[in-house]
Amino acid sequence: MQRFFLFVILVVAGLCASAQNKVVVFQSDFGLKDGAVSEMKGVAIGVSPDLKLFDLTHEIPAYNIWEAAYRLRQTVPYWPAGTVFVSVVDPGVGTERKSVVLKTRTGQLIVTPDNGTLTLVAETLGIDAIREIDEAVNRRKDSQKSYTFHGRDVYAYTAARLAAGVIGFEQVGPLLPRQEVVSIPYQKAVLEGKVIKGTIPVLDIQYGNVWTNIPDDLFHQLHANAGDQLSVKIFHNGKQVYQGTMPYSTTFGAVAIGKPLAYLNSLLQVSFALNQGSFAAVNKISSGNEWAVEVEKK
Amino acid sequence: MQRFFLFVILVVAGLCASAQNKVVVFQSDFGLKDGAVSEMKGVAIGVSPDLKLFDLTHEIPAYNIWEAAYRLRQTVPYWPAGTVFVSVVDPGVGTERKSVVLKTRTGQLIVTPDNGTLTLVAETLGIDAIREIDEAVNRRKDSQKSYTFHGRDVYAYTAARLAAGVIGFEQVGPLLPRQEVVSIPYQKAVLEGKVIKGTIPVLDIQYGNVWTNIPDDLFHQLHANAGDQLSVKIFHNGKQVYQGTMPYSTTFGAVAIGKPLAYLNSLLQVSFALNQGSFAAVNKISSGNEWAVEVEKK
Amino acid sequence: MQRFFLFVILVVAGLCASAQNKVVVFQSDFGLKDGAVSEMKGVAIGVSPDLKLFDLTHEIPAYNIWEAAYRLRQTVPYWPAGTVFVSVVDPGVGTERKSVVLKTRTGQLIVTPDNGTLTLVAETLGIDAIREIDEAVNRRKDSQKSYTFHGRDVYAYTAARLAAGVIGFEQVGPLLPRQEVVSIPYQKAVLEGKVIKGTIPVLDIQYGNVWTNIPDDLFHQLHANAGDQLSVKIFHNGKQVYQGTMPYSTTFGAVAIGKPLAYLNSLLQVSFALNQGSFAAVNKISSGNEWAVEVEKK
Repeated sequence: MQRFFLFVILVVAGLCASAQNKVVVFQSDFGLKDGAVSEMKGVAIGVSPDLKLFDLTHEIPAYNIWEAAYRLRQTVPYWPAGTVFVSVVDPGVGTERKSVVLKTRTGQLIVTPDNGTLTLVAETLGIDAIREIDEAVNRRKDSQKSYTFHGRDVYAYTAARLAAGVIGFEQVGPLLPRQEVVSIPYQKAVLEGKVIKGTIPVLDIQYGNVWTNIPDDLFHQLHANAGDQLSVKIFHNGKQVYQGTMPYSTTFGAVAIGKPLAYLNSLLQVSFALNQGSFAAVNKISSGNEWAVEVEKK
Repeated sequence: MQRFFLFVILVVAGLCASAQNKVVVFQSDFGLKDGAVSEMKGVAIGVSPDLKLFDLTHEIPAYNIWEAAYRLRQTVPYWPAGTVFVSVVDPGVGTERKSVVLKTRTGQLIVTPDNGTLTLVAETLGIDAIREIDEAVNRRKDSQKSYTFHGRDVYAYTAARLAAGVIGFEQVGPLLPRQEVVSIPYQKAVLEGKVIKGTIPVLDIQYGNVWTNIPDDLFHQLHANAGDQLSVKIFHNGKQVYQGTMPYSTTFGAVAIGKPLAYLNSLLQVSFALNQGSFAAVNKISSGNEWAVEVEKK
Repeated sequence: MQRFFLFVILVVAGLCASAQNKVVVFQSDFGLKDGAVSEMKGVAIGVSPDLKLFDLTHEIPAYNIWEAAYRLRQTVPYWPAGTVFVSVVDPGVGTERKSVVLKTRTGQLIVTPDNGTLTLVAETLGIDAIREIDEAVNRRKDSQKSYTFHGRDVYAYTAARLAAGVIGFEQVGPLLPRQEVVSIPYQKAVLEGKVIKGTIPVLDIQYGNVWTNIPDDLFHQLHANAGDQLSVKIFHNGKQVYQGTMPYSTTFGAVAIGKPLAYLNSLLQVSFALNQGSFAAVNKISSGNEWAVEVEKK
């Protein structure tokens, strides 16, 4: 009787196993105005209707691999181990770039063309292993004639099969050397004397805040407390385009509406804002490797 | 044997209980271009992969608490009791504004800063109870250094734990007096003689229709039937900016393309439209407390 | 004992049956800035919290039935049989247009006003059967006073009840003759001598690529191989607005950045692009029946 009971429990557990974490998160530069994202999701649900599908964003500016890399670095750490990401910013679709699945040290999987998209997660979360997708087996049936939509035919399909447990990570394809992951070069933040130098990897576009790549531990070496004034300079291609003084603040409301402040953003990196205004628009600041910042305590 | 059978059924029911209503609906002014919404959802799925996550909108204009309040009032009644809403339009993040969970009389929960966002649902659905979030217990682990993203660290996390049954409503934190919920003052619709006076709380932006706050029961006191002509005046800061005559109509197709009509919108409130045109754009009408309307049967 | 075991398995299977394909996919011209889409989804989840709700797009240009038809034709084939689509581009809401559910030959269901939205899926996937929605039974309770939001009150509600198995397809309402489905007339692609003539049904808006309605099997009658030059002409209302020569290419990277190419898009139809540029913007090309193309091998 006890063995029968155990057996029933196992059967029940097996039948209900669909209640496991079967999460896929999609990112692309496709926008939301046409059917492309929905085609990818349809393919995934065709693999298993038990999958739970989410979006990171589909508004990556067209072909902007760097921003795709940044949004992954921003978001992946907040999803549990086992989550499978699909990132499709793929200007080189059909060329020699590899299709890969990277497993982070924290257990998330990322399915993507290896074109620089992995630059920042590889660095911040670490690479447990990376495999090249063997398209002979990991490609949607009857899709051989299509060569412009790997997002649907290869990446969404492979991600869904991984998330649903149809294949394991080992069945993706051959292991690649970790150090060969394609990486976009960029300048890291450094402390030189009493000045921290960094770049502007991305804007907080919805509000116009300027995000730097200066992390909290480096910033704290300035020994600035909330309310202390900072001197901030911003450079474009080496030419100074902004200079100002603003308090380091732990709340936007600490300064008057429209006034500047420096703060640590939600990724704990130094950022500049106008309270309820757009620092980037008012001061004509954008993002990328050609933008540099210098921060000093007054 | 029968008791054993009952036991098996209970075990089965328990294992399958993940098929209950575990719904969270997100609203914000974050937009969809970056990773912020996805960070919130990742935190929620980290609480329980069984949660079902939906969006109200993330395109609330930045810092527009009134519109956040309106979209909740428009949408919450159509979701079943037990649904947990997260609304994050939070210009005062890090200041003294309270973080709360309101339970409506119809059984939905709303997790939000108490900054006016609850003005309209409190009024239309009623307050069963409201509790302040005790951030000592209801805050994402290791998030103490982050002070600008309560949406992720407090609201999404608390909503997910409520929806997943990890905590009950009582464990949110201390009860607040119902009458202390922060409310944005606004002018209600009234009948004065034969004229109904109201405001324009919001536009039906996708089509350019003008929505008023005049409800159907008040409108019906004009005894207007479909086809009857109405005189409509619109004022901005007390100055008349539009005067026109249009039929009360139960279908847009009742007037020629480009012609005006008055109708009851999907919330059963008096609205003005051009058939397949934008009444708001053509007549330069916007929304807010400084916009007033007068409607009279001719 | 064995019969009891069988019985337990059946009970378990029944309780877990919620793990079936209960998928609803929404399309509309509502945009994502207000509460309309969320009202529809709330109504669906009110029917059954086990439903899995997805979006095709809500950015169909207002009232553009043709584009709604195209996005369905583009997307529906990638979703499994049993998926229920809701498409609400409904300028005639409240007029005589019928509300229908079409079942394709491939097993997907589409709930929509019968206003031309079904033109292309009816043609490419075939009609298994089409039924008119009997609103006496298939309408949200207490929604009789609302006459402008069938998307919420009739379509989302009916789709949810179909997807959840509350009603079967037979309970939608009376069968309609297949040949009476409302169809928007358009010019099909043809080979005349050595020239293929077609139209531009839609743009690939995110990238500015121009999609034609010339399918791969017709194109292959030109016997063009990758690298062969094609002569392409584009006409607006019969007047030539573009003439150029470009290679037929199986990858965008085969031409220099900014250079034109012809390729088969993800639906295997002839398309024109600039590598990492916008062919449509640069050459001022749009879409619709008044746009024609001619393609010839040089």
